[in-house]
Amino acid sequence: MSVPSDIEVARAAKMRPVVEIGAKLGIPADALYSYGPNIAKLASGFVDGLGDRPDGKLILVTAITPTPAGEGKTTTTVGLGDGLNRIGKKAAICLREPSLGPCFGVKGGAAGGGYAQVVPMEQINLHFTGDFHAIGSAHNLLSALLDNHIYWGNALDIDTRRVTWRRVMDMNDRALRGIVTSLGGAANGFPREDGFDITVASEVMAIFCLAKDLKDLEARLGRIIVGHTRSRKPVTAKDLKADGPMTVLLKDAFMPNLVQTLENNPAFVHGGPFANIAHGCNSVMATKTALKLADYVVTEAGFGADLGAEKFFDIKCRKAGLKPVAAVIVATVRALKMHGGVAKEDLGRENVAALKKGLANLGRHIRNVGQFGVQAVVAINRFVADAEAELQAVGDYCAEHGVEAQVCTHWADGGAGAEDLARKVVALADGGHSQFRTLYDDDVPLWEKMRTIATSIYGADDVIADKQVRDQFVQYQKGGYGHFPICVAKTQYSFSTDPALKGAPSHHVVPVRELRLSAGAEFLVAVCGDIMTMPGLPKVPAANAIRLDSDGQVEGLF
Amino acid sequence: MSVPSDIEVARAAKMRPVVEIGAKLGIPADALYSYGPNIAKLASGFVDGLGDRPDGKLILVTAITPTPAGEGKTTTTVGLGDGLNRIGKKAAICLREPSLGPCFGVKGGAAGGGYAQVVPMEQINLHFTGDFHAIGSAHNLLSALLDNHIYWGNALDIDTRRVTWRRVMDMNDRALRGIVTSLGGAANGFPREDGFDITVASEVMAIFCLAKDLKDLEARLGRIIVGHTRSRKPVTAKDLKADGPMTVLLKDAFMPNLVQTLENNPAFVHGGPFANIAHGCNSVMATKTALKLADYVVTEAGFGADLGAEKFFDIKCRKAGLKPVAAVIVATVRALKMHGGVAKEDLGRENVAALKKGLANLGRHIRNVGQFGVQAVVAINRFVADAEAELQAVGDYCAEHGVEAQVCTHWADGGAGAEDLARKVVALADGGHSQFRTLYDDDVPLWEKMRTIATSIYGADDVIADKQVRDQFVQYQKGGYGHFPICVAKTQYSFSTDPALKGAPSHHVVPVRELRLSAGAEFLVAVCGDIMTMPGLPKVPAANAIRLDSDGQVEGLF
Repeated sequence: MSVPSDIEVARAAKMRPVVEIGAKLGIPADALYSYGPNIAKLASGFVDGLGDRPDGKLILVTAITPTPAGEGKTTTTVGLGDGLNRIGKKAAICLREPSLGPCFGVKGGAAGGGYAQVVPMEQINLHFTGDFHAIGSAHNLLSALLDNHIYWGNALDIDTRRVTWRRVMDMNDRALRGIVTSLGGAANGFPREDGFDITVASEVMAIFCLAKDLKDLEARLGRIIVGHTRSRKPVTAKDLKADGPMTVLLKDAFMPNLVQTLENNPAFVHGGPFANIAHGCNSVMATKTALKLADYVVTEAGFGADLGAEKFFDIKCRKAGLKPVAAVIVATVRALKMHGGVAKEDLGRENVAALKKGLANLGRHIRNVGQFGVQAVVAINRFVADAEAELQAVGDYCAEHGVEAQVCTHWADGGAGAEDLARKVVALADGGHSQFRTLYDDDVPLWEKMRTIATSIYGADDVIADKQVRDQFVQYQKGGYGHFPICVAKTQYSFSTDPALKGAPSHHVVPVRELRLSAGAEFLVAVCGDIMTMPGLPKVPAANAIRLDSDGQVEGLF
Repeated sequence: MSVPSDIEVARAAKMRPVVEIGAKLGIPADALYSYGPNIAKLASGFVDGLGDRPDGKLILVTAITPTPAGEGKTTTTVGLGDGLNRIGKKAAICLREPSLGPCFGVKGGAAGGGYAQVVPMEQINLHFTGDFHAIGSAHNLLSALLDNHIYWGNALDIDTRRVTWRRVMDMNDRALRGIVTSLGGAANGFPREDGFDITVASEVMAIFCLAKDLKDLEARLGRIIVGHTRSRKPVTAKDLKADGPMTVLLKDAFMPNLVQTLENNPAFVHGGPFANIAHGCNSVMATKTALKLADYVVTEAGFGADLGAEKFFDIKCRKAGLKPVAAVIVATVRALKMHGGVAKEDLGRENVAALKKGLANLGRHIRNVGQFGVQAVVAINRFVADAEAELQAVGDYCAEHGVEAQVCTHWADGGAGAEDLARKVVALADGGHSQFRTLYDDDVPLWEKMRTIATSIYGADDVIADKQVRDQFVQYQKGGYGHFPICVAKTQYSFSTDPALKGAPSHHVVPVRELRLSAGAEFLVAVCGDIMTMPGLPKVPAANAIRLDSDGQVEGLF
């Protein structure tokens, strides 16, 4: 049997006009600012008017620690949304927007897969509604205003050695990681070291995804710290009068995007901050809007639950006042076997012993989600080669740990393959047993917040850092940022900071290398390892195979 | 009497749904890919199906040599389009898209002014339909693929000292003019000199505006030369397999954008290449589409007629097989007085003597347009302070030179102020007396082409160049590019290469500093002076005043 590719499935989709999708949520046609027949932004006036409605129920889809075997968090989010609609619930999903740059590298698109996708996939993966371009423009306008200020006399006395605001581009381009700017003589300014990050790594992206409204957006943008003066005082975007024009550039982008799943159910795809130096969730704007319009809202968070779910709960939910009532932890037999020590090439063979070993990883994620007071169900994203004994072993393990497990086949079967999962999720969501709480309170000192995450979530014994880094914690604590949450940047491939440590490592220590302030996004990034904020392209980039075919259709994108 | 600002006029406009605007041209609603209610792209299938229809009549709006007093080429294009519609003609206009970067510098928007504007002005001036972002992405993908190729072994043996393909950003950012990339160690590649141009200066933009269809677009993109090998062989985008993904990134942008004038008449706003290192006209795609849909199509070209009209005729019309039947030369009494030696602060005073002196500038533009076999009318874009005697003097001068002049008040009165101009244009267009011809044939040698432009259009005695530059002419002539037209990059403020020489200077010589090949755009750029491909921001940038007001409306943009 030949399996159609994701793009073939997507192209064969019978999309409905976006006004019909909006109508399922009671959105009037004139509140949709459409981008062609199948994509729309919600008009700001309409969104502003939703404030008094009751909220629907928020469900998080997260996952075990990722492996090269894949887990399927996005496909499960899509499948669960479709499954909920199939069992008669008014449900919507909230996803992150894909980044353009990586499409030309290794990974292809990011709009789900198989029969659990959002469409139109080509547009969503390419420029979509231009949100990321707007975010890049706003970011780079601040950069230009900063260097322009220095050029014309530097009235603020900015120390050009201490400029921390880099530039961005939505492209995998390693050549731009480290650059020297303003070369070529007096007319071009004062040379200094600089560099580019990929647009999704911009603090503007994090702010965009956390801001409650345009006013909050402008205020947060104004608080961005771009560098320091010679006398070590922070210089903000507001000092450079950049907050106004940046907000103008983001005004339209800020409205949530509405598209549909392959089964014509509503999907909000909006915002996409990096999951390491930012919090890795779709926009608060989209999530809150969806909650006003649907009874059940399913959303996802980047990486495994140690990073994604923790930040979703401790940053996004804390800041936006969201109260998730259920969580889905996605696992695959293949990935669990990898956590149990099986090499990728041997994943096709039944190996219950290795699987059982790997289940420790799932177990810790189950426990962790429980620490936030949110009831969970495990979704086993089934692959064809999975053996019954293996599936059974996962189910037994979950039962022992007090959660239900559900085998899902949404990749092959669409929403029908996630109906049972949907029923279990509804039972949890409607059961009223979740009592969401953050892991730590705002007033816990910064160093203690970091230690709490490391010990409670990562299973570490302690946190360590050089004196210089510990001093940073003290400085930010004293400087008025002690109430901010911590956003950990560490490898997503292990609970520890060593990507080779699979399963559920214990007795490790978490070294913090640096603490960075994101004053506009309102969190502190604890850097615990190498973090890459500008990817490169591989030797044979995906771009090589991307072109229009003779019918003008995109080929090679996935 | 208080005069409303452009943005106030624009915001008070009673816009009609873009489907109604399309219907005026017989475009079915399902052929419009809308971006909100008032902006649409034409579907490619619809455009492809227009091939057999007869073409409407093409009218160029050009101008005298620009001065700080302003001429009003875009407002005249808009006013004439509205005037034609008012006198019962089926007319459309074709404009260039504004660039985002300059909005935050000095000039504000570029969508007309007064009661002769295209709307919705805020969107058109900000991200619009994302075309320039797509062009920037395509350009920078080629840059990334180039450095990535070098990084992974440089199989093509590209000489990193001879890479000519820079990067782009739609921002006025002088700090990016000259940079060194790939710093920071082995993982970031091989450091080399590089720089950024503003997106409108990209060869991708020029190609986008000259390509006939997506196939032609891909072929031209593939021919872009990015640098040379160690053995001095050109390396193309196709060698880097960049043509396919670049075309994919541009696929949607390539379709013409439809908006409306303040009087609800159709306006295509598409493409915007720099008028110095490129040809400065809107896209061939939009112009050809408009000609299939309207009986009269009015378009403009950048700068004065010596640059804009010459390139429109010799590059765009030649390459696209267009046959313009009439030209409008826009002049103002104020600008003519400046050409006659009056300082800007004295323009408010009647000065017929200076005006008469300045008319030599207009006279040469009239003669020049005649060299292309196109009949012209002079549009006097009236300002309140213009004296009757001054207007009369312009009219008399034009009559002596065999062309009609028409005073227009479209800025204050909209299309009603350009009805008489519209009647004169129709008389020329329908008279059948224009016999369009290019200034030189394809097979004239490159150096002779340059000399022909300089002597016939600029009034120069000759062209000079160093041996090195003359050798470039010989090399490109021998290298198979002898049939390309010449695209002159020189100051727009004088017929000569000295911006201080107003009026109609003679006996000057034109020094060519460099000849650059744009192999994909299919022209050679003769650089005759400093050309700036990345603007800077002024000491007090327009950005400082741009923000959302308390109603969420953009203020300070214009």
